[in-house]
Amino acid sequence: MAKIDLNCDLGESFGAYSIGMDAEVIPLISSCNIACGYHASDPLVMQKTIALAGEAGIGIGAHPGYPDLMGFGRRNLNVSPAEAAAYVTYQLGALYAFAKSAGLKIQHVKPHGALYNMAGKDYTLALAIAKAVKAFDPSLILLGLSGSESVRAAQDIGLPAAREVFADRAYMPDGSLMPRTLEGAVIHDENEAIRRVVRMVKEHKVTASDGTDIEIVPDSICVHGDNIKALTFVTQIRSALEAEGIQIAPLSDIV
Amino acid sequence: MAKIDLNCDLGESFGAYSIGMDAEVIPLISSCNIACGYHASDPLVMQKTIALAGEAGIGIGAHPGYPDLMGFGRRNLNVSPAEAAAYVTYQLGALYAFAKSAGLKIQHVKPHGALYNMAGKDYTLALAIAKAVKAFDPSLILLGLSGSESVRAAQDIGLPAAREVFADRAYMPDGSLMPRTLEGAVIHDENEAIRRVVRMVKEHKVTASDGTDIEIVPDSICVHGDNIKALTFVTQIRSALEAEGIQIAPLSDIV
Amino acid sequence: MAKIDLNCDLGESFGAYSIGMDAEVIPLISSCNIACGYHASDPLVMQKTIALAGEAGIGIGAHPGYPDLMGFGRRNLNVSPAEAAAYVTYQLGALYAFAKSAGLKIQHVKPHGALYNMAGKDYTLALAIAKAVKAFDPSLILLGLSGSESVRAAQDIGLPAAREVFADRAYMPDGSLMPRTLEGAVIHDENEAIRRVVRMVKEHKVTASDGTDIEIVPDSICVHGDNIKALTFVTQIRSALEAEGIQIAPLSDIV
Amino acid sequence: MAKIDLNCDLGESFGAYSIGMDAEVIPLISSCNIACGYHASDPLVMQKTIALAGEAGIGIGAHPGYPDLMGFGRRNLNVSPAEAAAYVTYQLGALYAFAKSAGLKIQHVKPHGALYNMAGKDYTLALAIAKAVKAFDPSLILLGLSGSESVRAAQDIGLPAAREVFADRAYMPDGSLMPRTLEGAVIHDENEAIRRVVRMVKEHKVTASDGTDIEIVPDSICVHGDNIKALTFVTQIRSALEAEGIQIAPLSDIV
Repeated sequence: MAKIDLNCDLGESFGAYSIGMDAEVIPLISSCNIACGYHASDPLVMQKTIALAGEAGIGIGAHPGYPDLMGFGRRNLNVSPAEAAAYVTYQLGALYAFAKSAGLKIQHVKPHGALYNMAGKDYTLALAIAKAVKAFDPSLILLGLSGSESVRAAQDIGLPAAREVFADRAYMPDGSLMPRTLEGAVIHDENEAIRRVVRMVKEHKVTASDGTDIEIVPDSICVHGDNIKALTFVTQIRSALEAEGIQIAPLSDIV
Repeated sequence: MAKIDLNCDLGESFGAYSIGMDAEVIPLISSCNIACGYHASDPLVMQKTIALAGEAGIGIGAHPGYPDLMGFGRRNLNVSPAEAAAYVTYQLGALYAFAKSAGLKIQHVKPHGALYNMAGKDYTLALAIAKAVKAFDPSLILLGLSGSESVRAAQDIGLPAAREVFADRAYMPDGSLMPRTLEGAVIHDENEAIRRVVRMVKEHKVTASDGTDIEIVPDSICVHGDNIKALTFVTQIRSALEAEGIQIAPLSDIV
Repeated sequence: MAKIDLNCDLGESFGAYSIGMDAEVIPLISSCNIACGYHASDPLVMQKTIALAGEAGIGIGAHPGYPDLMGFGRRNLNVSPAEAAAYVTYQLGALYAFAKSAGLKIQHVKPHGALYNMAGKDYTLALAIAKAVKAFDPSLILLGLSGSESVRAAQDIGLPAAREVFADRAYMPDGSLMPRTLEGAVIHDENEAIRRVVRMVKEHKVTASDGTDIEIVPDSICVHGDNIKALTFVTQIRSALEAEGIQIAPLSDIV
Repeated sequence: MAKIDLNCDLGESFGAYSIGMDAEVIPLISSCNIACGYHASDPLVMQKTIALAGEAGIGIGAHPGYPDLMGFGRRNLNVSPAEAAAYVTYQLGALYAFAKSAGLKIQHVKPHGALYNMAGKDYTLALAIAKAVKAFDPSLILLGLSGSESVRAAQDIGLPAAREVFADRAYMPDGSLMPRTLEGAVIHDENEAIRRVVRMVKEHKVTASDGTDIEIVPDSICVHGDNIKALTFVTQIRSALEAEGIQIAPLSDIV
């Protein structure tokens, strides 16, 4: 039976600031990526988010980012691989402590924002991150963009890797995401997006930007819970997948 | 045979900023308290300090503080007990990750600066911190001021507690430290300071500010490695203790 | 003709985080206090908020707070008077730069949260802040709690001072605010709150917690624009004041 | 009579952390660049550094950087031009407040580290920064790398610009600095470095990496005061310049 994970970024609130509809999206997903205090979140938010994820029984992931709260970790920062690795270890450990204190486990690590994007294209950076995760716990899953250097680096050192796909993004013939600066990068027709996702999961194929079919093997679909519209879309994806006989399951059941 | 631990704060450098003579003081001590990024330190410094401590085989402690880098964690901050507990969990986990990734263990937790002082006098705050440490790992030792609420709270919940004393500070008849604002709070005669420490360790007694002898049972002596003068003093304390047949040993051998 | 200022905290968003309904509350108020990046806000938010305030022609105030983004500046921090003064100078200058670059002026300074509360009760702290404001620009108005040390300190050194009152808070017989921990501290009946405000403005009197009337001379009423309910209340206060023939005017027209 | 400015970064200490020998280098230089709290410094350090610079009568510059304390502002951060401009306004205003409160003026603005380097090569970024400086005060001087986009952008909008040169760095035939990754980028022979500087000032010429002479018109030489060796070198440069009849003068006397 085909299986797929639905993952969503959670726990991005900070102090007096609230972001996201965590309680509403949790019932719809199977894994979550919890911010760790560098680009978003704070210790109380992490503790609360771990508790919510634990109650729902979804897979818990660390979501480490650059130390750039003002930019929400979305701005490229030219750190050394050693710095990136140490930042991942730090944030992973911090989240681990909240999980362990609540009797829960960490399932995976997904770098956030600019760190995710930069590591996806830079093997040296990706390797440093994968090694940091493995040094802490070699059973953790590295969740990275399908076809990225992050996935390749994890596989190269024997760290479990999960391949993430996006429902609403176009793919280039080489399997990479079409840059957002190009026309057609985002698929606005929700029905088409859902059809593409179902096909990726069932047939391991997607139509690339040049009209050819390329192979893609998805382990997890990235979804968002920022607002009502996003939640509605997740509900639709989930329903469509279940209608096709695809099981929604956390990464630990898939990888 | 009488045993005592010598502990020192390490890993307080940050980015381009260096503080302390860590490499020089490590051979003189048996346990260290490593800053965790809130009041001092950063991930690279933590990683490096863990490595140094591991090579030397000294006990490794987490040294969590208030999120006040500008004030070095020395300024009282009116956080709730829940906030303090979460801050301790966060920082403890971050340091744990570097230790575990290096194949090392955390021995103890010693709150830093204003957090140490406030918890020492506030049972509710102390209890929240002790519970946070125990929830993460009930075998960790809480290192607190001898006679403080921190030690009492840890003992009340069955968390191992270690009692810290100061060689160069005067004690009040109730066993508390004489406030620095009072004359005579600091003992400037190094020989007298060393005699007092030796007596605390061997006889469990110290002469209080009113001239009476009070009971004090020290598990660890706090020393400093900020400069050459401090290092010289540590060397003298260590020599005096060893000359008296007292063994210098990490907390895990004592508590 | 009686005049009163309505002031509201604005520009508290930060990076990806939004707080407050600034655009909606601006037409209802005559002065604003703009966060300066220490407890909330960032440079882009400050620039945008200055622009909005300038377009509306309301009085612009700096709203400096403690360097505690995680606690939104609401937690007491035991800084020295010299530190507090320097923090005010820093933040005031930062906001001034955005105002000057937009061809606008700063009207007043209102410390935020815990800094406001601590300075309100501590003359030494209040004096350090007032001197910092005066050293930068002696024509700036210090907006502080009516009857507080902040107002007294400003008056003592010849810095213009404005007295702030709260519509929904009870007053003690000595003119201080009833602590929130006491029952009756907050007036939940909006009509009563409005009646009290109108009386303060027109008669300079308010009924204290012991039932006696005390004198209070308000220059500005603190209002909130966090949500629809708060906005509705501001609209009601404003209407009631205008119905009583009281003019809503910025602090610079009053002090 | 030939004139040249000697500028040095000052006020980079932060909280409990000290960097630099500010008091020792101040008598040797004619202008200083004071960190503004984003990549280094804090309000107390800024206040103290302004006072030192004011007593010595040297030109005072703002030294704004990226919000990256952990990386000392030396890591490229992919901010938008609007963000960079707002960060400059913020930091410039903060330093201005300390200068004005002390009865002193700001002479110039020199972006720090990665912001300096990125703006030097990116006209759009450089233009945003120059416009931000001009909007605040069109009489301020923008100090940028000789031949850089920063200088060009300032000149294009009529903002006074000063050209900075380095004594110990090799130049490419196009007038740009040889990247540090190339051999020969740093001139280790101090006598040769000094000869090159004197020639730049007197003849407006320097020998480039290909052996040809190129034109270079220096307004200011960047020097360092981090340690005794650096101070000795500044002393030598200064002596050599004075021996050649070149006057050391702040930027405001030159541009």
